[in-house]
Amino acid sequence: MEKIVNPEVHDAPACDAALVHAFGLLGKRWNGILLGTLADGAAGFAELGRAVVGISDSVLAERLVELQGAGLISRQVEPGPPVTVAYQLTPSGEALVPVLAQLGAWARANLV
Amino acid sequence: MEKIVNPEVHDAPACDAALVHAFGLLGKRWNGILLGTLADGAAGFAELGRAVVGISDSVLAERLVELQGAGLISRQVEPGPPVTVAYQLTPSGEALVPVLAQLGAWARANLV
Repeated sequence: MEKIVNPEVHDAPACDAALVHAFGLLGKRWNGILLGTLADGAAGFAELGRAVVGISDSVLAERLVELQGAGLISRQVEPGPPVTVAYQLTPSGEALVPVLAQLGAWARANLV
Repeated sequence: MEKIVNPEVHDAPACDAALVHAFGLLGKRWNGILLGTLADGAAGFAELGRAVVGISDSVLAERLVELQGAGLISRQVEPGPPVTVAYQLTPSGEALVPVLAQLGAWARANLV
């Protein structure tokens, strides 16, 4: 059997590194669902805690910092009174939402 | 700010579990690139080892078993002589290829 080598394969180490980075971030429990929840609009800390059933406040805080560090969400302080804090997707985070939806659909259909 | 709760969010724990499962599998180094390589067609063990620069034979063997266990690739023995073994994507594996391509494109554009 002849195998035709796709030239794109030779770019694969860089592609693989980007994918590994993406999976490292998104593979952490709650990160996908947090992004999915924020896809519906900006939300405060308490709102996110209620929407994401089972997450503790400390883990929620940690994940929000991580997602901010990766540039996927932003934290905006709205001057009060009372001062409120809202989290929302950045354009990079928004761009991920349809891809996550496709990956979730694939996983539900193909992984048990 | 009023937040409209998307009813889909309440299905999210199941979605999240499927995504976490997907990320657990695909987040492992080499799995994405192995699936990408097999997207070009069936390949033998040695061919895969050459296509995926940097992978050791023992890690390659381990990943192939894992991807077979997840139902994403199949291993076919072709009667010889000489007997040859080829790995190829299952329909589940094929279905993942365009999603991985989208995720890779997103990661390259949005993660540094």
